[in-house]
Amino acid sequence: MRIVVLGGDGYCGWATALYLSRKKHTVSIVDNYARRQWDHELGVETLTPIRPLKERLRIWGDVTGHHIDLFVGDVTDYDFLSSVVKSFEPEAVVHFAEQRAAPYSMIDRNHAVFTQVNNVVGTLNVLFALREFQPDCHLIKLGTMGEYGTPNIDIEEGYIAVEHNGRKDVLPYPKQPGSFYHLSKVHDSHNIMFTCKVWNLRATDLNQGVVYGTMTEEVALHEALINRFDYDAVFGTVLNRFCIQGAIGMPLTVYGKGGQTRGFLDIRDTVRCIEIACLNPAAKGEFRVFNQFTEQFSILDLALLVQTAGSEMGLPVEVDHIPDPRVEAEQHYYNAKHSKLIELGLQPHLLSESLLDSLMNVALKYQDRIDTSCMLPSVDWRQARNSCQSHARLSFADIGVSGKSAEAQ
Amino acid sequence: MRIVVLGGDGYCGWATALYLSRKKHTVSIVDNYARRQWDHELGVETLTPIRPLKERLRIWGDVTGHHIDLFVGDVTDYDFLSSVVKSFEPEAVVHFAEQRAAPYSMIDRNHAVFTQVNNVVGTLNVLFALREFQPDCHLIKLGTMGEYGTPNIDIEEGYIAVEHNGRKDVLPYPKQPGSFYHLSKVHDSHNIMFTCKVWNLRATDLNQGVVYGTMTEEVALHEALINRFDYDAVFGTVLNRFCIQGAIGMPLTVYGKGGQTRGFLDIRDTVRCIEIACLNPAAKGEFRVFNQFTEQFSILDLALLVQTAGSEMGLPVEVDHIPDPRVEAEQHYYNAKHSKLIELGLQPHLLSESLLDSLMNVALKYQDRIDTSCMLPSVDWRQARNSCQSHARLSFADIGVSGKSAEAQ
Repeated sequence: MRIVVLGGDGYCGWATALYLSRKKHTVSIVDNYARRQWDHELGVETLTPIRPLKERLRIWGDVTGHHIDLFVGDVTDYDFLSSVVKSFEPEAVVHFAEQRAAPYSMIDRNHAVFTQVNNVVGTLNVLFALREFQPDCHLIKLGTMGEYGTPNIDIEEGYIAVEHNGRKDVLPYPKQPGSFYHLSKVHDSHNIMFTCKVWNLRATDLNQGVVYGTMTEEVALHEALINRFDYDAVFGTVLNRFCIQGAIGMPLTVYGKGGQTRGFLDIRDTVRCIEIACLNPAAKGEFRVFNQFTEQFSILDLALLVQTAGSEMGLPVEVDHIPDPRVEAEQHYYNAKHSKLIELGLQPHLLSESLLDSLMNVALKYQDRIDTSCMLPSVDWRQARNSCQSHARLSFADIGVSGKSAEAQ
Repeated sequence: MRIVVLGGDGYCGWATALYLSRKKHTVSIVDNYARRQWDHELGVETLTPIRPLKERLRIWGDVTGHHIDLFVGDVTDYDFLSSVVKSFEPEAVVHFAEQRAAPYSMIDRNHAVFTQVNNVVGTLNVLFALREFQPDCHLIKLGTMGEYGTPNIDIEEGYIAVEHNGRKDVLPYPKQPGSFYHLSKVHDSHNIMFTCKVWNLRATDLNQGVVYGTMTEEVALHEALINRFDYDAVFGTVLNRFCIQGAIGMPLTVYGKGGQTRGFLDIRDTVRCIEIACLNPAAKGEFRVFNQFTEQFSILDLALLVQTAGSEMGLPVEVDHIPDPRVEAEQHYYNAKHSKLIELGLQPHLLSESLLDSLMNVALKYQDRIDTSCMLPSVDWRQARNSCQSHARLSFADIGVSGKSAEAQ
């Protein structure tokens, strides 16, 4: 199958492109290196040293014999994007090419506007390019479980059957996103749903949970293929950050009570879910939504799991509760459905001690590269302007992190 | 009360600014004349000749003794907008300053992207400016009934109580908007709801129906205060267009079966609803939604009402059904709640024969200015690119309009 991965230089995009390529799909990557640029802006680096994309792709070809085409450019540039669609003629477009960090979108007005314009215009461009030049192509769009928020009822996969005043309908599931980033994904979902209706496009919206892990079978093939591993408070996802904190003896920074419950998945399941969506396309005119995660945990659950895994490795791990920089419920009902990908054949890699162990060992391997100052939250949801250059970050002492253990709370 | 009307040179904005000014509020207008520019772009003009805004405001002052301040600039320019908020210190911001025509947003990619970026960024700027400089100010935002689409259940005012799998919650009402324009309003609604939550702002989203009429007590005070009257297929609203078609002997152009049912209101109720919202502000942190319309009609209902009114005036009016350029249900359930503004004191001006009569007389008065070529739809929802310069428009013959009367159907 001819598959183009938009955002193929990023954390999930890179792992996905390699997986699909090894599965013998004809893969191309589109990227503008925005993700690398944001690291420069914030003064942070991935834990794992990642090589330039051209070099990664050359080595991928050398190691596997599979070629991945590269188109360097920005999906918000319609001339560029439509030329890619015309020349590559994809059967599936996997769209990771968005600004994906909630804290980044909450830094200030510029970052909020950038996130929404970048994400919404990029996706509109994808929709118009498919409508104009590849109308049968299947769009596989990365959404987020964060679109739903934390309603007091079960979360369904995209739609909900409602009975109201004696009448019935199946309606889009109401969305209560929690950042300008999450809002941008809600905007995208509405735009895509509309174009499936008026233009008969086919699309799958993958409302992904929080991804953890860094290793896949493909990136393990050669050190130059290593994947990103972000642990800073802006782009790092929570479990990855906890593993690094635990490995180097920093207390785990749980925001508030830690009862915030979310869906999670291993990056090895991300890549498999994408292929499952490709191989089982939505029908013409269909806007299909899958909730893409395998297990749900509270933040405190995860902290305690890392603490246990650390203790087995002889690493004493403390858990601290710091003021929640986000505006979110710290205790709430959460029960999100996620059966559609399972029904299509996903066999989950559930979170295990050995995975936590291996993540902490990655952290130890690259510990010389760790900047401990970038793990504390630098973006406060309640403020309209945050400074998140590294020099402006709070120290542990500033925010009253004392090293209390989780058991004491 | 200190009230700034964003978009105060437009159809509803102008009438609102004058109404609030005559009610002794301290009013200022912000406008960048975008609406006048779009007329130039499309090669159309309002039926009624409208004077430059500075002249209109000078005459308003001469006639009434009330002064309205003017700030010329674009709400997507944050420096400009925040300087207005800082200097005027509004207690209420009435936000009409958006691209408001569904067909305009469906012309092509540029117009879709423009509409969404313009509307979303303008509203984000308003939210940030209030958060930073006037956090107690009440935002009154014009949404649209078109955000809801046509679900098969009753439409509530913004929220719906849902019982699901034995649990209950009150959730944002699901949205199924029908154009890139309507989508932009849904995006705005989500963004505003979020900022009320995280920043404790106060906002009222007025999901307005289709507005008809042109005359208010205020614009009637002097001919130089005359309001816009748009009748072209892009910016003209349906009942206004029907009245003009009926007055000059053109068949009324009903899209498809005409069973499309929507909420409607007289512009005299628009201006009153805005004042009611101002005088009854949302609480801090509250995101309140009112459905702002007074009656619901199908498009065919309206055509037949105009036909009847015309016949009383001795004008034979034909009703034609032309292919629907939009993608929408032509027959559907529709029952939208609209009691909240009534409960706060709105006394509706219901649609009457005398109102239709007066609209047709306005059309006759200015009939020399009518361009009949701009009333046929020039934007097809199913296409990714439409040309809507006047030379590209279809003629009646091209689309098979024959002058069949509605009775025959």
